[in-house]
Amino acid sequence: MRIDIITVVPGLLEGPFAHSILKRAEDKGLAMVRVHNLRDYASGKQKQVDDYAFGGGAGMVMSIEPIAKCIEALKSERDYEEVIYMTPDGQTFDQKMANALSLKGNMIILCGHYKGVDERVRQKFITKEISIGDYVLSGGELAAAVVTDAIIRLIPGVLNDETSALTDSFQDGLLAPPVYTRPADYEGMAVPEVLLSGHQAQIEQWRFEASVRRTKERRPDLLEG
Amino acid sequence: MRIDIITVVPGLLEGPFAHSILKRAEDKGLAMVRVHNLRDYASGKQKQVDDYAFGGGAGMVMSIEPIAKCIEALKSERDYEEVIYMTPDGQTFDQKMANALSLKGNMIILCGHYKGVDERVRQKFITKEISIGDYVLSGGELAAAVVTDAIIRLIPGVLNDETSALTDSFQDGLLAPPVYTRPADYEGMAVPEVLLSGHQAQIEQWRFEASVRRTKERRPDLLEG
Repeated sequence: MRIDIITVVPGLLEGPFAHSILKRAEDKGLAMVRVHNLRDYASGKQKQVDDYAFGGGAGMVMSIEPIAKCIEALKSERDYEEVIYMTPDGQTFDQKMANALSLKGNMIILCGHYKGVDERVRQKFITKEISIGDYVLSGGELAAAVVTDAIIRLIPGVLNDETSALTDSFQDGLLAPPVYTRPADYEGMAVPEVLLSGHQAQIEQWRFEASVRRTKERRPDLLEG
Repeated sequence: MRIDIITVVPGLLEGPFAHSILKRAEDKGLAMVRVHNLRDYASGKQKQVDDYAFGGGAGMVMSIEPIAKCIEALKSERDYEEVIYMTPDGQTFDQKMANALSLKGNMIILCGHYKGVDERVRQKFITKEISIGDYVLSGGELAAAVVTDAIIRLIPGVLNDETSALTDSFQDGLLAPPVYTRPADYEGMAVPEVLLSGHQAQIEQWRFEASVRRTKERRPDLLEG
């Protein structure tokens, strides 16, 4: 899988892709992420990528021309299965969508910034609009990093332990159970005895019940439908 | 406002806080973000911050001791209004929570990693657990960056134009309307005429109707309740 991210603030994405799981996925040849500076596709001495909104109002709008040039340049080099736009009014990202996207080939992710992109970019180029939640960020960069991280960790071989992702919250429609590690007693706070018992069947039963209890308390909506 | 972020992968947070809006907020003295490497609070030559889960199973668990040391060191220096833990089973972050948190004083944000933190950390230190959405990330670092960005941009004076955040999606319970900028005609795709008309009242009416229409189509749930 190759993900090309288009942004006006490439520096925002330096940390997330140079560290941790994404770095490991790239080192293993399982995924490749490339960040493109939209300004490289802008014309004129100013390398302007945005302009005032027609109709007035606060905030700048990202122009269609540099975005079109960048997407067309990428598409001339390889095929893409999706051209994604990160926007608060997109479809809400969840684990099911992460699972589906982890099976895709190449993707372009366009990060909105300022007041967003010219609507015609969305009409002409975008195949999927994604929101990571009901809140507004200063740009789509962190959202693109979130989606990329959630997808890439699901590619077989990226996590050290293949079974690790399967016990995560949401994969089975339940929240994960509480976890404990040493010391068994911390200032009088003890670990539940069953976890120290060595009875694997009882431990699994306890974990399942704790998952169900936590889901009922915190996210009863996950148990409906 | 001061935000102290505790993490085992500080490098993941280098980009987000060195660029863009958060940098500007810090330069203006409106907000301060500090990232702490949990390993600095671990004892022993190995500087170990995690250990196997009691009861077995895939994935490591973050130990209580280094986290306790780090939180207690921070608390000895200043008061904190919230000690937040980023976790998929936390309360779902939204714009309303962002607005509320933007009014707070100092906060600590603890990033989960691996399978999460020892449950006793949550019982003893955490005042608020936040999830940025129903998906699993390789760690809480990107989630902490998302929450920090969403909060800090709301602090008066951080955005260049004070009114900019007010016209965002979710602030009025509606998605934002489409935006357009030059050229007025792009390869036959024209900007809606009303936006070029100069009639400000008609433009506002068109934007409101477009917001309602988009919300009805994409997020009817926002219009209920």
